[in-house]
Amino acid sequence: MKDTDTIYGVHAVRVMLERHPSRVRAVLLAERRENARVRVIEELARRHGLPVERVDMAALQQLLGEVAHQGVAANIAPLPPWSEDELLAALGNASAPLLLVLDGVQDPHNLGACLRTADACGVLAVIVPRDRAAQLTPAARKVAVGAAETTPVAVVTNLARTLKLLKDAGMWVVGADPAGEKPVHSIDLTGPVVLVVGAEGTGLRHLTQQNCDYLVRLPQLGAVESLNVSVAAGMLLYEVVRQRGKA
Amino acid sequence: MKDTDTIYGVHAVRVMLERHPSRVRAVLLAERRENARVRVIEELARRHGLPVERVDMAALQQLLGEVAHQGVAANIAPLPPWSEDELLAALGNASAPLLLVLDGVQDPHNLGACLRTADACGVLAVIVPRDRAAQLTPAARKVAVGAAETTPVAVVTNLARTLKLLKDAGMWVVGADPAGEKPVHSIDLTGPVVLVVGAEGTGLRHLTQQNCDYLVRLPQLGAVESLNVSVAAGMLLYEVVRQRGKA
Repeated sequence: MKDTDTIYGVHAVRVMLERHPSRVRAVLLAERRENARVRVIEELARRHGLPVERVDMAALQQLLGEVAHQGVAANIAPLPPWSEDELLAALGNASAPLLLVLDGVQDPHNLGACLRTADACGVLAVIVPRDRAAQLTPAARKVAVGAAETTPVAVVTNLARTLKLLKDAGMWVVGADPAGEKPVHSIDLTGPVVLVVGAEGTGLRHLTQQNCDYLVRLPQLGAVESLNVSVAAGMLLYEVVRQRGKA
Repeated sequence: MKDTDTIYGVHAVRVMLERHPSRVRAVLLAERRENARVRVIEELARRHGLPVERVDMAALQQLLGEVAHQGVAANIAPLPPWSEDELLAALGNASAPLLLVLDGVQDPHNLGACLRTADACGVLAVIVPRDRAAQLTPAARKVAVGAAETTPVAVVTNLARTLKLLKDAGMWVVGADPAGEKPVHSIDLTGPVVLVVGAEGTGLRHLTQQNCDYLVRLPQLGAVESLNVSVAAGMLLYEVVRQRGKA
């Protein structure tokens, strides 16, 4: 893993300064960007004693490429993957923790897309198996547009065991499956819940299914047999946020 | 547009034979694939007087590439894009028509992903502007995994005018916007409804916003400022299906 990552955009930099100021090493502001939102970022950085560097727009563009950086970036300490122990320890700090499991998702783009949505929906961590599954590659980070720096990825060696440990910790495990008996909205998702989506094409593995308290189905009215995994994850996460009244 | 398209997979071929048999030119079955689901397809083809060709698995693999074809494919007449007139004419045949508008979405992958979800959620047609927007390229078709052959794309020259015509036809126009005042689930989506999602990064255009009856927001609890457009479309469409009780 690199020693430093760079995030960009007014919103992402502000949220990082508010929630994880200790991970910020420096704030980069394009010269001649002066507005209320940028001033809030400067003020936050000053309050935490963090350096603010003025860079010219061309340098920022070269550093970041063609992205919507809004003249604002930050160098931060990368978010390391969580171990199973760190994942279990983190549960205690959340009132109704929400986790997302990707069961053997192979495509780093799908991992990145799921991270982006997970961030938007208040997911505590995204869980992926260590083997035969997409990891947090540069491609995944790019698609996550910064969410890889805020939503931890927990890498586990034995997903079935992890699901059992999560159940022992009081969480309900809800898997999306085309053969699921209930529509997802019929399940109460306001408590501690683990959502599980399966691999592209093959769906949940048998052992994963066995560790689900509920198998739920998503809309499937058409000719195509399955939803894209990141869209399926988005629908599940949307439903949790809807039920919790936080939309 | 090509003269013939090929679709594959037991489910996709069966749905095409059931709903649009006149568009099927031939059914291709891999030799030695005999099971109940394949026999249903053979029976459907026979009932409609359509040729069934036995091909060997290697030939099918070569034709389709590395996809989950399950030994079943069909040559079909492509679905041509709809004009605005065809779109308006089709409204009369649906009891509560559901349309999805992509307002200036540039990435063909996002168009394809939206088509796949639209198919799963019973969308009548996906509407895209003719200019400065992704069209139904081979890349978009590939990501749509067959949905481009079942869910029509309506290409319109003036989106604001089309939205006005749809409103005149009794439809409610609901746009997703981060600044939307209401969460989407607070709006009744059981009637004739047009959902609108904006371009990557920039969101809905001003003129499009003005033609929306409601601007609604989607979950946004995290550090990343916007959802991927195909995930946003998936959440909106999920909510419609949920409200209509068809999940």
